[in-house]
Amino acid sequence: MGSNTIGKCFTVTYYGESHGRCIGVVIDGCPPGIPVSESDVQKELDKRKPTQDDVSTPRREYDKVEILSGIFRNYTTGAPISMLVWNKEFQSDVYKEFKWKPRPSHADYPSAIRYGGYADYRGGGIFSGRITIAFVAAGAVAKIILRRSGIEVLTHAVEVGGIEAKKSQSIKMIKKNVYANPMRCADLKAASEMEKTVRRAKDEKDSLGGIVECIVTGVPVGLGDPIFHSLDSDLAHFLFSIPAVKGIEFGVGFKAARLKGSENNDQYEIKNGKIVTKTNNAGGVLGGLSNGMPIVMRVAFKPPSSILQKQKTVDLRTMTETELEIKGRYDVCVVPRAVPAVEAVVANIMADHLLIFEGRAEKRG
Amino acid sequence: MGSNTIGKCFTVTYYGESHGRCIGVVIDGCPPGIPVSESDVQKELDKRKPTQDDVSTPRREYDKVEILSGIFRNYTTGAPISMLVWNKEFQSDVYKEFKWKPRPSHADYPSAIRYGGYADYRGGGIFSGRITIAFVAAGAVAKIILRRSGIEVLTHAVEVGGIEAKKSQSIKMIKKNVYANPMRCADLKAASEMEKTVRRAKDEKDSLGGIVECIVTGVPVGLGDPIFHSLDSDLAHFLFSIPAVKGIEFGVGFKAARLKGSENNDQYEIKNGKIVTKTNNAGGVLGGLSNGMPIVMRVAFKPPSSILQKQKTVDLRTMTETELEIKGRYDVCVVPRAVPAVEAVVANIMADHLLIFEGRAEKRG
Amino acid sequence: MGSNTIGKCFTVTYYGESHGRCIGVVIDGCPPGIPVSESDVQKELDKRKPTQDDVSTPRREYDKVEILSGIFRNYTTGAPISMLVWNKEFQSDVYKEFKWKPRPSHADYPSAIRYGGYADYRGGGIFSGRITIAFVAAGAVAKIILRRSGIEVLTHAVEVGGIEAKKSQSIKMIKKNVYANPMRCADLKAASEMEKTVRRAKDEKDSLGGIVECIVTGVPVGLGDPIFHSLDSDLAHFLFSIPAVKGIEFGVGFKAARLKGSENNDQYEIKNGKIVTKTNNAGGVLGGLSNGMPIVMRVAFKPPSSILQKQKTVDLRTMTETELEIKGRYDVCVVPRAVPAVEAVVANIMADHLLIFEGRAEKRG
Amino acid sequence: MGSNTIGKCFTVTYYGESHGRCIGVVIDGCPPGIPVSESDVQKELDKRKPTQDDVSTPRREYDKVEILSGIFRNYTTGAPISMLVWNKEFQSDVYKEFKWKPRPSHADYPSAIRYGGYADYRGGGIFSGRITIAFVAAGAVAKIILRRSGIEVLTHAVEVGGIEAKKSQSIKMIKKNVYANPMRCADLKAASEMEKTVRRAKDEKDSLGGIVECIVTGVPVGLGDPIFHSLDSDLAHFLFSIPAVKGIEFGVGFKAARLKGSENNDQYEIKNGKIVTKTNNAGGVLGGLSNGMPIVMRVAFKPPSSILQKQKTVDLRTMTETELEIKGRYDVCVVPRAVPAVEAVVANIMADHLLIFEGRAEKRG
Repeated sequence: MGSNTIGKCFTVTYYGESHGRCIGVVIDGCPPGIPVSESDVQKELDKRKPTQDDVSTPRREYDKVEILSGIFRNYTTGAPISMLVWNKEFQSDVYKEFKWKPRPSHADYPSAIRYGGYADYRGGGIFSGRITIAFVAAGAVAKIILRRSGIEVLTHAVEVGGIEAKKSQSIKMIKKNVYANPMRCADLKAASEMEKTVRRAKDEKDSLGGIVECIVTGVPVGLGDPIFHSLDSDLAHFLFSIPAVKGIEFGVGFKAARLKGSENNDQYEIKNGKIVTKTNNAGGVLGGLSNGMPIVMRVAFKPPSSILQKQKTVDLRTMTETELEIKGRYDVCVVPRAVPAVEAVVANIMADHLLIFEGRAEKRG
Repeated sequence: MGSNTIGKCFTVTYYGESHGRCIGVVIDGCPPGIPVSESDVQKELDKRKPTQDDVSTPRREYDKVEILSGIFRNYTTGAPISMLVWNKEFQSDVYKEFKWKPRPSHADYPSAIRYGGYADYRGGGIFSGRITIAFVAAGAVAKIILRRSGIEVLTHAVEVGGIEAKKSQSIKMIKKNVYANPMRCADLKAASEMEKTVRRAKDEKDSLGGIVECIVTGVPVGLGDPIFHSLDSDLAHFLFSIPAVKGIEFGVGFKAARLKGSENNDQYEIKNGKIVTKTNNAGGVLGGLSNGMPIVMRVAFKPPSSILQKQKTVDLRTMTETELEIKGRYDVCVVPRAVPAVEAVVANIMADHLLIFEGRAEKRG
Repeated sequence: MGSNTIGKCFTVTYYGESHGRCIGVVIDGCPPGIPVSESDVQKELDKRKPTQDDVSTPRREYDKVEILSGIFRNYTTGAPISMLVWNKEFQSDVYKEFKWKPRPSHADYPSAIRYGGYADYRGGGIFSGRITIAFVAAGAVAKIILRRSGIEVLTHAVEVGGIEAKKSQSIKMIKKNVYANPMRCADLKAASEMEKTVRRAKDEKDSLGGIVECIVTGVPVGLGDPIFHSLDSDLAHFLFSIPAVKGIEFGVGFKAARLKGSENNDQYEIKNGKIVTKTNNAGGVLGGLSNGMPIVMRVAFKPPSSILQKQKTVDLRTMTETELEIKGRYDVCVVPRAVPAVEAVVANIMADHLLIFEGRAEKRG
Repeated sequence: MGSNTIGKCFTVTYYGESHGRCIGVVIDGCPPGIPVSESDVQKELDKRKPTQDDVSTPRREYDKVEILSGIFRNYTTGAPISMLVWNKEFQSDVYKEFKWKPRPSHADYPSAIRYGGYADYRGGGIFSGRITIAFVAAGAVAKIILRRSGIEVLTHAVEVGGIEAKKSQSIKMIKKNVYANPMRCADLKAASEMEKTVRRAKDEKDSLGGIVECIVTGVPVGLGDPIFHSLDSDLAHFLFSIPAVKGIEFGVGFKAARLKGSENNDQYEIKNGKIVTKTNNAGGVLGGLSNGMPIVMRVAFKPPSSILQKQKTVDLRTMTETELEIKGRYDVCVVPRAVPAVEAVVANIMADHLLIFEGRAEKRG
């Protein structure tokens, strides 16, 4: 059963393995006439680049995108857009051991069962964070579509290793600061603390988790669908496709469980001739539809499972307990790279719903 | 664009409005030969019944299911299973006002824009909690399929209005207690506190949120898919289709963001000849695949938006600010009814993946 | 694996069995604000009524549609439209024998294997011509959508039992004559011949096939999609879902195989300021897209397999050869009822593509 | 709205343009452990090679496949299989004129409207016969899957330019002869006549159509689905995605319309302990399910629209009538290349249904 296509209108199909020949993506359903160039996509991919050896994976990666189809003379044609990034030669030998000595909390074990030993295990295969290259490339096109309708997607790290950024960063500060520090955090003071914590965790051969927040502004009212393709359903669906995500919440999220209706309800008012809500506890989504307020969601990332400490595992060949000591260089914390990934994923789903929304406009009876 | 079908193999199509003629569901892809009777489905629907006037909506509902197709002599035939519950006559006049005076934090406003005034607004139409009748009916069939493979889905309230149940209730206590108290909580002492809080909120014309936990046991290793149909993606997708859900997390969820890898990683061991993990921080899902441990997720519900206090809203006709005082009887807290809804939704997705998983077994090269 | 939903935007889900409780359909993706009433749908269903005992099945059927959801005050709401026809009590005992003595050229044998004996065999279950009730009900809504954009679907019998209608009936004559004779043929003289042939076949306990032609006028240029959702792909897909269809062709169809390019090519000219083609050998479809000319297709129906003559079959229980003599009353020729079925199916697919087409208009870059 | 993915289980996604960088395909849902190498795929692609200058397009094409993902050490991994063929540099200037002077019976005109002038028109873009490269590459994998279950797909030209091959060629003769002559015809005498006709048409600057027959042997009973994913529906759907197809029929096809039930019905008998039918008028499909007999279908191809004679067309810029004289070298008849394309398309759909069928086996109640 296929599992590598998502979207109803702006459809994204994934392929590729971490240490295979390439990571690729096919976008189907993009309207013709959208200006898209390789450099537009490259700009987004570059946001995944490790900016500092201590924080992200130190392996040098130069992920260069190539557009294979669907763009003609820098405009989309309406045909499927195919893009790929060729993988460089990696050191894959280290992964062989994980086939029978699964890394704790990595997909090694269920993958071995699911694919009966045929999976390409090198670099984690399809379970690697590198799959988000495809999400980001597709997201670059999605963001151009959104921008044409005045919709912007902003993402930033709000927590790393227990260090929280100041709440409610302004849009301006997010835009200004996020790519000005290696943690992708809008609060520069917190960012500097986060960096220290990450460095400490690295020294301890340990890893750290964190939380990424995404804000979508300029969304028209009534975008989305009820029931099974609600905005939050579709966003959560794709976001959980990002490796290491363990939780998603909209607006006040889990905190809503502790609020009373009178505290949680977003009462309406008129501001500058526009209907707005006094608060945005809902995070911009009601009944699966946008209500015109910024769509706000928070995504929790677990600490990477590949740590350099000795860990207990089992030998799948002998069914005995054993130990594993992973060697090599891994991300101490995925948050900095998760920021562009979350942004891209949200852009993809928003573009999908925007195209449906705009298409719907003239069909009403 | 259609939005009312979900699932790849065990496919669920929804229809019906809160105060329309009925709530219905069509299941497609159910294998032939599964024993299913109307009473199996009715038993699950009865779990939605309000057990106590003070806690759930006091409106008396007798939701009787009728099976229209796909079952012949108490066995599934392999043809689509159609089921519906006829709605009783409701008092719908009160809802007319919400068409132009939208209730804060309800879907009234975006729905008015999305459907251009054509939506059936009575009782909230398709934005009502009554849509979960369809989920529960389909879930009843899903649960029979799961049970045949030794998979069980258990759900309970773990928090209501800030009152938390004791952590880590045993499966046994959950089974014993959940339907023995109106709060659907396995911790009877907490349940009694929750009841009091709910009653108090009712007196204050207010409403309460809460958290529901769902545990799936007996899941084989390797069930699920990578990338876009990961178990967590699909579960989150359908769970966010339940009205009032604002957050979802697997395993330790948001707490994972604050753990170190060395704390969060679930190390493997052998127990009774079986590979298990010492902890279950992952909540049974790695890389979108089951790892054989119980799948554990927590779902946050906001307090119902329909409260009987005066609230600020706007008049959509005149674009002026105004006030709204909702009359009538509404759920103070959706958690008790959310428990069977969450259980059904999880069962639907698990059955979808189980059928794919079992089908896959013999196709391997 | 589900198999009972079709369409990308205007989505149709089928359920029900020939002698089960009902035949039903759920339409998803219909825009709000389309005026639809039960009588609009009933009018289309009435076209399936047997008009004359000698020609169609003599069993009296009064197929009354009920709309269960999605229509509010005679307008579509944008929510799923659910419709059903309750089945009357039928004589089902006769079908029991076919479970182990399969009727030649009926689905009895593969169905027995496919569903392992669990299928509802009564009246042919889901393999009955009654499934087209659902197609016709959905088609009634589709036709209203099409009509609003000036698109009309016309269908007529062009051949029955070897009797051919005169070629190239005018739209006017088709509209005038088709429902004025029991054969649904625009050429009244041929219709009268067809009737005689059908009566003769009936006397001989035999059955007859025929060909139905469908013409869609008013289609804008560029409707459809390339590759996998070409207009002809989608039309053929749904048309082959009608029982007894054995062939489909567009424009000159199979005859095109014998034409030279210089004969087959439809050269362009300007007529009344509009681009048209001098001929319409393509049947209005080029590269999967409409070219503005009428879309013309022909659908071949085999003679019904249930004939009252003694036939050779096998006993599935004993795996021995045996004979079968079907008793009862069956359609001698499905063509008269196939006419509204083909029309509905084509309307469904055209509405699906029209909604996509209209939605696409404003999304272009 | 995306239109470039087909299949439920063995899913094929297309991308690429005739004169763009490449033609590519992504297969999703292929089970792990299937032995597939680049040479397996290349062997199928080579069947598209023009074997003789006079018959097929004289342009030299060396379509070399590259596998980009999903195959590891010559076995499928269960991850998406991505394959592409790089396009060579073509002479594309000649196509510019067709943007405003559409070729009769080619997709130029509806494409210009549909894509608003943004389409990659070079070489026909996505409306070129080169798209079948993707179908054939995917079909190569499908054929390996089918072969493992004893299913074989055979295809041959049965009519070209009015020259018919002898009926009912034996499987043996088809296997032996089809790729031994440039017409891909099992009847060598007819093949030689066809060649002459093609050469004559070439001299006359004209083109020819023809008919391709496909036979699938070894299909188990009960494969397929009722209603919307019937075997014939799915086969017809994909077959109509091949450019130039104008008609499809199963078994006796259109001739069934002229047979009586007593002539058309395939009566059952036992042969070598197996249930078979005395005739195979149904072409192996009953009610959308296979009945164990060979699945037989015939596909009608129109003559290529690009002929070198002067033709009437219009100028889209000035909306005036004009003439067009196409220069260059085009296929006189697509049939020889259509043979591997039809075979691949049928293999893809059969593999899709086979995987569903085999998966279903163990899920029955």
